[in-house]
Amino acid sequence: MTGFPRPPYQWPAPYKAAAVVTIDIDGESPMAWHNRGRPVPLLSELEQRRFGPRVGVWRVLDLLDAFGAKASFFVPGMIADAHPALMPAIAARGHDIGLHGWHHEKVDELDRAQNVAVLDRCIALYQRQLGRRPAGYRSPSWEITPEFHALLLERGFACDASLQSFDHPYGFSGLVEIPGQWLVEDTIYFRFTGGPRDRTHPANPDAVLASWIEEFEGLREFGGLFTLTIHPWVSGRAQRIRLLRKLFSHIRAATDVWWTTAEELARWHVNSPNAEIHKLDIELLDTRGVVGPKL
Amino acid sequence: MTGFPRPPYQWPAPYKAAAVVTIDIDGESPMAWHNRGRPVPLLSELEQRRFGPRVGVWRVLDLLDAFGAKASFFVPGMIADAHPALMPAIAARGHDIGLHGWHHEKVDELDRAQNVAVLDRCIALYQRQLGRRPAGYRSPSWEITPEFHALLLERGFACDASLQSFDHPYGFSGLVEIPGQWLVEDTIYFRFTGGPRDRTHPANPDAVLASWIEEFEGLREFGGLFTLTIHPWVSGRAQRIRLLRKLFSHIRAATDVWWTTAEELARWHVNSPNAEIHKLDIELLDTRGVVGPKL
Amino acid sequence: MTGFPRPPYQWPAPYKAAAVVTIDIDGESPMAWHNRGRPVPLLSELEQRRFGPRVGVWRVLDLLDAFGAKASFFVPGMIADAHPALMPAIAARGHDIGLHGWHHEKVDELDRAQNVAVLDRCIALYQRQLGRRPAGYRSPSWEITPEFHALLLERGFACDASLQSFDHPYGFSGLVEIPGQWLVEDTIYFRFTGGPRDRTHPANPDAVLASWIEEFEGLREFGGLFTLTIHPWVSGRAQRIRLLRKLFSHIRAATDVWWTTAEELARWHVNSPNAEIHKLDIELLDTRGVVGPKL
Amino acid sequence: MTGFPRPPYQWPAPYKAAAVVTIDIDGESPMAWHNRGRPVPLLSELEQRRFGPRVGVWRVLDLLDAFGAKASFFVPGMIADAHPALMPAIAARGHDIGLHGWHHEKVDELDRAQNVAVLDRCIALYQRQLGRRPAGYRSPSWEITPEFHALLLERGFACDASLQSFDHPYGFSGLVEIPGQWLVEDTIYFRFTGGPRDRTHPANPDAVLASWIEEFEGLREFGGLFTLTIHPWVSGRAQRIRLLRKLFSHIRAATDVWWTTAEELARWHVNSPNAEIHKLDIELLDTRGVVGPKL
Repeated sequence: MTGFPRPPYQWPAPYKAAAVVTIDIDGESPMAWHNRGRPVPLLSELEQRRFGPRVGVWRVLDLLDAFGAKASFFVPGMIADAHPALMPAIAARGHDIGLHGWHHEKVDELDRAQNVAVLDRCIALYQRQLGRRPAGYRSPSWEITPEFHALLLERGFACDASLQSFDHPYGFSGLVEIPGQWLVEDTIYFRFTGGPRDRTHPANPDAVLASWIEEFEGLREFGGLFTLTIHPWVSGRAQRIRLLRKLFSHIRAATDVWWTTAEELARWHVNSPNAEIHKLDIELLDTRGVVGPKL
Repeated sequence: MTGFPRPPYQWPAPYKAAAVVTIDIDGESPMAWHNRGRPVPLLSELEQRRFGPRVGVWRVLDLLDAFGAKASFFVPGMIADAHPALMPAIAARGHDIGLHGWHHEKVDELDRAQNVAVLDRCIALYQRQLGRRPAGYRSPSWEITPEFHALLLERGFACDASLQSFDHPYGFSGLVEIPGQWLVEDTIYFRFTGGPRDRTHPANPDAVLASWIEEFEGLREFGGLFTLTIHPWVSGRAQRIRLLRKLFSHIRAATDVWWTTAEELARWHVNSPNAEIHKLDIELLDTRGVVGPKL
Repeated sequence: MTGFPRPPYQWPAPYKAAAVVTIDIDGESPMAWHNRGRPVPLLSELEQRRFGPRVGVWRVLDLLDAFGAKASFFVPGMIADAHPALMPAIAARGHDIGLHGWHHEKVDELDRAQNVAVLDRCIALYQRQLGRRPAGYRSPSWEITPEFHALLLERGFACDASLQSFDHPYGFSGLVEIPGQWLVEDTIYFRFTGGPRDRTHPANPDAVLASWIEEFEGLREFGGLFTLTIHPWVSGRAQRIRLLRKLFSHIRAATDVWWTTAEELARWHVNSPNAEIHKLDIELLDTRGVVGPKL
Repeated sequence: MTGFPRPPYQWPAPYKAAAVVTIDIDGESPMAWHNRGRPVPLLSELEQRRFGPRVGVWRVLDLLDAFGAKASFFVPGMIADAHPALMPAIAARGHDIGLHGWHHEKVDELDRAQNVAVLDRCIALYQRQLGRRPAGYRSPSWEITPEFHALLLERGFACDASLQSFDHPYGFSGLVEIPGQWLVEDTIYFRFTGGPRDRTHPANPDAVLASWIEEFEGLREFGGLFTLTIHPWVSGRAQRIRLLRKLFSHIRAATDVWWTTAEELARWHVNSPNAEIHKLDIELLDTRGVVGPKL
């Protein structure tokens, strides 16, 4: 069992659990990735996605301000480059900002040189727009490889928010991992653009809210970290701002839960006893010797 | 940020938001498009879809009358041609009527000459049946291209209802755009014909009503436009008429919301200060230079 | 509009609407069809489906008796042949029984000679087991063709229950059509066998009940026919019997709704003024001349 | 009807029905099976699945202890081998443990020699870790073949938990079958890993709880067996532990329901009158002579 189960995660007094709101301003960047090099003469999904940096993000920022809450934003280079006032405006309101690819590239589909080129281009833009290097990273589609992880380490990143090994922060081969969960992510419930990737209609927002609150209450009980992940092109729609307002009210009322940011969590982790107790090393799946017909 | 965020949309006093009901009488036209040139000896989906112009549309018209409300209909040429009394009956009750293709053709799959032929055939039928030229257009499947947009402009259309860049009306390279949303569309929740395109079973109508009312209330709060889109072959079924009655009662009770039509909205837009403030130009996605394996 | 809208359907006094429960005892027959000629060494889905004729149908029969209600069963020849006591037991309790293919064959995938062979084999079995010819038919998967429709007419069937042109009975090129609706069918909400055809998890039964009651109440209001369609391998499971009990209680309490069978409805239709008013002729989709890229 | 319907299943006094909790600790083993022999440099789904043996199973064990309840675990060899303290810890708490493949292999995709090799490897590990031979088995994905069934019989297994012919225990060609149901299984409602196999977003846990309780109450009424199946990587998440706590409270309050384990059920079955009454022999589907186009 390699030491499991382990003791509970420790939070700064008087807190018994934590919550972080993470916001990926993808906009149209995944469309660029999926159609790379091809002309796309279409406007429908494109304009639905542009609603994010155009309208949704400002509604989300205002809502966070209304709660006096700080969040962690992840911005693809393509979006930050097209909207040069965006990252500075977010930073000015006191939020974290991390990287999220340039065109929302899936890191496991790029080779090492391509990943280096994209990552360094993102860092350079970040430095140009914000005057400092980024500390946080979230991989597009939450997929990451050992090779890419090593690139983050080499470049001095403090934390990653792509994996889900535990439901509290943990060390992961040298980075602090701030785990999310698909369960508490907006696009899987609400995205519907009219294309072939749509799975089903948008979910009822109150049913989703109830499900998210159940997870929040469960993590509060187990002393874990509640990580919400939203995208302004989806969660900036009017109905969803109402959902978020109800959720944020619930979080705010839980005075034993530390509502903070990913970078603050990373700082806490490395300076607490958790650093020694709650950590893992990268270990890939061993698929050798599996009996069965050849693939 | 190219000027975003922008000031709120302005509505005629005493209104603070608006609502429009749009009705696409597709009937069997998408089946003709998807099976073009092929014999289709089947009756199941065909008769399900014919329920729309045969029964559903009359129930919807009666319901609108019961609320004294005017709506915006979009009618494929094939349906209007097969039911020559349909468009005149709708117009006689005071509703808008716009175009929606002849056989529900996807405009991005036709070349320019084909799009011209279809569009002009629709305009000619409209003139023959209603004695005037159409002012409004909605593209089948809500997809549109810059090339097709130019055809609409050339033919003097006033408004389009195919895109979703904002949640209020806006100028879009010379046309007034009356944006809808998949979130408030009936087929994605309720369509089930027994074929391979079915995604899941029909949704619970009260859960859908609750979701739509959340969006309505959110848009009322943000001063936006609530655009309902329904299809009589789906929403003319008995259960859905009950849903619509509950929704319309909710809209009617919101006395600060302007319940109007797409063409009326377009007239308001061009004659208000919004015309200068709320507008965009067509800008396609740039997919050059994306790093990644060749597609 | 070819005569639409038409006057309301007329029901025998004192009724204002009608309800019929239809029960397709498919069991494993669709698996035989989909795997025709292939060995199937698997047991999982097979035993799930055999639960229908083995357990489920008896629970449904007992429930109908508890309400003193008669229903319309449709039984594939393969199932009736393997369980020779089944159709006689159903008939002895006073229910209708109609045909439903031998191996649940899709009639549009058989040629005329194959359809004749299957249909006549089913009729012969029916005569052997019940001593009379069948009056009712429902096509597997609710798909039917003009050619197959003609075979039913030639063999003297009174009614078909495969189409959905209206939400009340109607004449259809010489047969009485007793229309169903996917909306009020059990498998699309509840079927889950662990195979690739599963769309989503089984729905919450109370949400489905609420949706079905909304349709029932809507049809009651519009003077239509509520046609429930269930399959004992799905609806014979314990949870679903509870659902049906709640639904049947609701139907029974609606004293202005005629709870009857498909064959009784067909007799009413042909002997009422509806026969002249509510009828259609078969008309296939015309897909010639549709503009677009060749398929 | 080959003797159907049969008399009710008999339970030990004072019970009128039964309940069993079954727990498959799959972890990452299905990923190994689906990627056999291929390198998998990815971490996202892998770490989501490892949450099961790492965290989830301990939460489930603690919850069972809180109710004083015993359950039936099924553990793939790969997981037991990687976590050698796991099976002993489960056994020490008084639970059943059965086999579940080594790499979660689908038994119908292995040939006889491969199945023998995998099964005997699992038995050897079980003996090594627990000092006795296994009595129970559940096939991965609940699929089983007559050939594999014979292997279980030859090796002296007492019970299998892979099929669903009835909703109470039954003899099946010499083994006692403890039937489950997809309806009361967690992954089909909650699994979402971000990959192409995801069907829809995670369901609302209270809606699932309500559906499961409806099945529990129905089986209580019919004198059947309620078999819950969960996976710690899914049901060990905070929200789901809350769901399970509510469900277990409901089960515990039903004092006429025997909450027991699969092996205890098998012992009851063979020593009760049920053994003679409730049994089936393996009979495969006959697909010869089905009329239709050749596949």
